[in-house]
Amino acid sequence: MRENTVAQLKRAASAEAIETELQRQLAVYSQHSTAYGAHFAELWEITSECILGGKLIRPRLLIGAFDALANSQAETPPVSRDAVIRIAAATELLHYSFLLHDDVIDGDLFRRGRPNLIGTLLQVRRPEPLCASDAVLAQDEAGEQRGPLHWARTSGILMGDLLLSATHQIFAREALPEEIRIRLLDILDHTITESVVGEHLDVGLSDGLVPADLDTVLNMSRLKTATYTFELPLRAALVLAGASARAEMVVGMVGRHLGIAFQLQDDLLSTFGDATEHGKDMFSDLREGKETVIIAYARMSEAWPSIEPYHGRANLTEEDGVFARKLLIECGAEGFIRSLIDEQIRTCIEFLAQPDHQLPVEVIRYIEDLVASLEERRS
Amino acid sequence: MRENTVAQLKRAASAEAIETELQRQLAVYSQHSTAYGAHFAELWEITSECILGGKLIRPRLLIGAFDALANSQAETPPVSRDAVIRIAAATELLHYSFLLHDDVIDGDLFRRGRPNLIGTLLQVRRPEPLCASDAVLAQDEAGEQRGPLHWARTSGILMGDLLLSATHQIFAREALPEEIRIRLLDILDHTITESVVGEHLDVGLSDGLVPADLDTVLNMSRLKTATYTFELPLRAALVLAGASARAEMVVGMVGRHLGIAFQLQDDLLSTFGDATEHGKDMFSDLREGKETVIIAYARMSEAWPSIEPYHGRANLTEEDGVFARKLLIECGAEGFIRSLIDEQIRTCIEFLAQPDHQLPVEVIRYIEDLVASLEERRS
Repeated sequence: MRENTVAQLKRAASAEAIETELQRQLAVYSQHSTAYGAHFAELWEITSECILGGKLIRPRLLIGAFDALANSQAETPPVSRDAVIRIAAATELLHYSFLLHDDVIDGDLFRRGRPNLIGTLLQVRRPEPLCASDAVLAQDEAGEQRGPLHWARTSGILMGDLLLSATHQIFAREALPEEIRIRLLDILDHTITESVVGEHLDVGLSDGLVPADLDTVLNMSRLKTATYTFELPLRAALVLAGASARAEMVVGMVGRHLGIAFQLQDDLLSTFGDATEHGKDMFSDLREGKETVIIAYARMSEAWPSIEPYHGRANLTEEDGVFARKLLIECGAEGFIRSLIDEQIRTCIEFLAQPDHQLPVEVIRYIEDLVASLEERRS
Repeated sequence: MRENTVAQLKRAASAEAIETELQRQLAVYSQHSTAYGAHFAELWEITSECILGGKLIRPRLLIGAFDALANSQAETPPVSRDAVIRIAAATELLHYSFLLHDDVIDGDLFRRGRPNLIGTLLQVRRPEPLCASDAVLAQDEAGEQRGPLHWARTSGILMGDLLLSATHQIFAREALPEEIRIRLLDILDHTITESVVGEHLDVGLSDGLVPADLDTVLNMSRLKTATYTFELPLRAALVLAGASARAEMVVGMVGRHLGIAFQLQDDLLSTFGDATEHGKDMFSDLREGKETVIIAYARMSEAWPSIEPYHGRANLTEEDGVFARKLLIECGAEGFIRSLIDEQIRTCIEFLAQPDHQLPVEVIRYIEDLVASLEERRS
């Protein structure tokens, strides 16, 4: 068997192990929930189904980096691979906790092209089919008038709390050597703080209370997504494999820049990419008036007065969208974001080229593969 | 000095130690927050001020029970008093996390007679003074239209997340003997689950999606408040002092019934008590249409058709309120709740009278003092 076929098989086995562990973690909570009546048991059941539909990006990244480092060492890592899988699976619970509170804050009823937890709960409670205009209903029910949507949103807040709590529990219960336990808790604390700051900034930008300059939007994007998607799994993997504080720091910086690059790539794809391929609603960023780095750049250009009317236009037609996209390309926004991505990748490579990074060649190769997968997505 | 004067001085010293520790914990987070810009730093500063205005009921209960047990033992407890104070202070962060999400869910802008975090943030962002009708504004802004209130509520959700996370961090970071660490994490997990179930049920009741029968309302009240206010501090205190699993279980049951009794007492006070004394808006429970045990009893009585029109009447006058209160007394609701409280206290005393409860006399006396303070509140 060729080396990359072996690697592929290993990756598939890891994905299966993560999935199984995640199912086990959710089953424990589901089982406990039955003691508290039908409503709460149903809530856990629906939440579990929603969580298990994810791509497991963060857990897979964590296991991938851990294996790369563990395989490069003569000595056994200080933490068993089973424990690493438990912690990796918990990062998916954290991810879903963030998604839930994000959906409550944004008033969204859909995610991944399907009704999200709130949308699903609403469907369970009401006979009418769910439609996009249900989001508007929210505002009629939010205040004095209460009903199924208010309860569904409340459930979103509360399940987000339980998943955040479950993440901490799984991290804290693992019988790890004291030093590793504290380093892992440090990473979790740092991650949650940065993700919250990012969300707070994102909403401040959308609500028009924070000026949408390029630096702020770029910083928001890093904090809200890059930290928990790349920095957390990579740093946690290294700590669990017994790496030095120096190696953890370098891989954290690499994760940060790689995370920004992926996030920028996502913004590019959802504005300029093929809608069917990345599974997002075409022109949804434009329609929602999302403050992306693309828009922040366009704001500074002379073309902004002609782009602005399309930004946040709820009833944007496809023709409008195609036209606005053309304007965004012409003003140089697309090219600028591509250059920003290149800059982030260059910074990653510079970190890896430092003589004292204390990272074995297997980890370097693993990160280079991630960079390559980013470059593939662009073509 | 008389014995109870010594006890009083000790209690005052404990309260000061908790306050100091809570200030220290909040200062650490406040200090870190400055790295993330002025908005986030301001958020932590305002949140800290709100938190420090509390009565510290849960931390004081925890320290009180710990001291009672520690003083009764010849051997030193397995956990230092300093560590116990850190954990006790963290229960106040948990309490405030619950309050924050409760305020977001209920659309409230006031708490403890002052603007709550959301209300304060709104005042900071807007020139107009805050008034009760601002809550209604919420619904106009919650959907498409966004603004300062949406950002303030988002901040409420996010700060609730950070405080929940901080509680876990403080519990998990303490260098405790492995067995005690896991027992403490079990208590925290159980507490958060029950509090979430209680809140979920409470909102389901208010939204008219769960039938408001007596058992459900009583159960909701226990889950939402009694578990984290009484069971958590008492059980945690015993575990930290090195008590047996049996003693922990007994004190947990005592805490549960004592918690229900205090909660029922609160319901009685806010419906039949003197408004100025307990600091709540007079008739607010009636006006909001809160599903208390009092109302659940009244629903079953023949008087309900004449009480119902006042329940949930937003523009209830003082005259209406006085009249509805008279009806509630006449239908037997007040007397029934008093008999429920007596039943809870009897159950507590029965648990303490069991021959194998493994609780030293000092702890029994401490709990008897709590029962006495409950009886004092009634007279």
